Amino acid sequence: MATTTKSHGPRGTYAKTEQRRTEILGAALEVISSAGFHKASLRDVAARAGLSQAGLLHHFPNRSALLKGVLEWRDTIDRQRFHGVADGVAVLRALLDLVEQNQTVPNVIELYATVAVEATSPHHPAHAYFQGRYAWAVDTVTKALRQAQSAGELRPGVTPDTAARQLLALTDGLQIQWLYDRSSVDMVAELRSHLQGLLAVDL
Amino acid sequence: MATTTKSHGPRGTYAKTEQRRTEILGAALEVISSAGFHKASLRDVAARAGLSQAGLLHHFPNRSALLKGVLEWRDTIDRQRFHGVADGVAVLRALLDLVEQNQTVPNVIELYATVAVEATSPHHPAHAYFQGRYAWAVDTVTKALRQAQSAGELRPGVTPDTAARQLLALTDGLQIQWLYDRSSVDMVAELRSHLQGLLAVDL
Repeated sequence: MATTTKSHGPRGTYAKTEQRRTEILGAALEVISSAGFHKASLRDVAARAGLSQAGLLHHFPNRSALLKGVLEWRDTIDRQRFHGVADGVAVLRALLDLVEQNQTVPNVIELYATVAVEATSPHHPAHAYFQGRYAWAVDTVTKALRQAQSAGELRPGVTPDTAARQLLALTDGLQIQWLYDRSSVDMVAELRSHLQGLLAVDL
Repeated sequence: MATTTKSHGPRGTYAKTEQRRTEILGAALEVISSAGFHKASLRDVAARAGLSQAGLLHHFPNRSALLKGVLEWRDTIDRQRFHGVADGVAVLRALLDLVEQNQTVPNVIELYATVAVEATSPHHPAHAYFQGRYAWAVDTVTKALRQAQSAGELRPGVTPDTAARQLLALTDGLQIQWLYDRSSVDMVAELRSHLQGLLAVDL
């Protein structure tokens, strides 16, 4: 009995801690989405999550840790779109849908774009995370393009890994241009036309 | 005589001030190139320029102003490559040469990439400057592609302004990937192959 109680205890605590972390991350994402990440303060996030600032710091020791937590949490959700999608062209469509959805939360895009560049410095706390994120993205798109190629849906001459790297670069670069001029840059249309140019079938 | 002296005086001072500013910018670029812009301090730049820190602050009131000065100064030099280049394909070649040269100073690329994203915020001191820089770049490449089109050197179906925006996005995005993984991303090769895909003639 003692053992059972012991093992239940930590698990219960773990689940509660995880739930509280998720609540904080949700609150942070709301504050960032409305105020922008430059203005989003730990105080605002704590208030939105119904916690004291000390309570928040128990879960995320500083602002950088919280921002990194938000990016990771959102990626985990975003990646679910791609789970179980076996068809290469369907993966590309899911990617376009994701960019379309991101366009509705410019402040979150600004957060990603800024941290992605800042974290190129090997000393940045999110460096390894973003390195892994790029590797995942290139790998996912490469596999999708290879599947399309096997199915005869890729134009001749397109090299999956090069095209994947370039698609990712194009997405990052268009985001920056879009942040400067939201009215005249249509990220989804640009990416769709680029992707269509790689395919032998309708996207 | 008095008038002549008066008009000589300020002009002499102006020329000296400009010369001193250029010396400081050159010193700053050297410090950034070797130490990286995160570590480049006003103290190091002043020492390299043979000035006191107060002397440096007389010309650039703070670190942001100095970094902005470095970016503008370097752009002015870089743009000289494109002056008087009348042939569209030659402009594209000059652009590739520039990217190739930039690859030799990764710390300066890191500076550009970081400030370009940070300055998407309308409150950033370099916001208007980067907005103008993007407009200039899109315009220059659009004109080059139009010239190539008129000369029958562009592939059918390529739209100059869209292709210009995408080329710029690709350059920005590849820079980020390159900063994460310099050994496996070849920016020049990627851009060359992309540009070659737009042209009906050899690049």
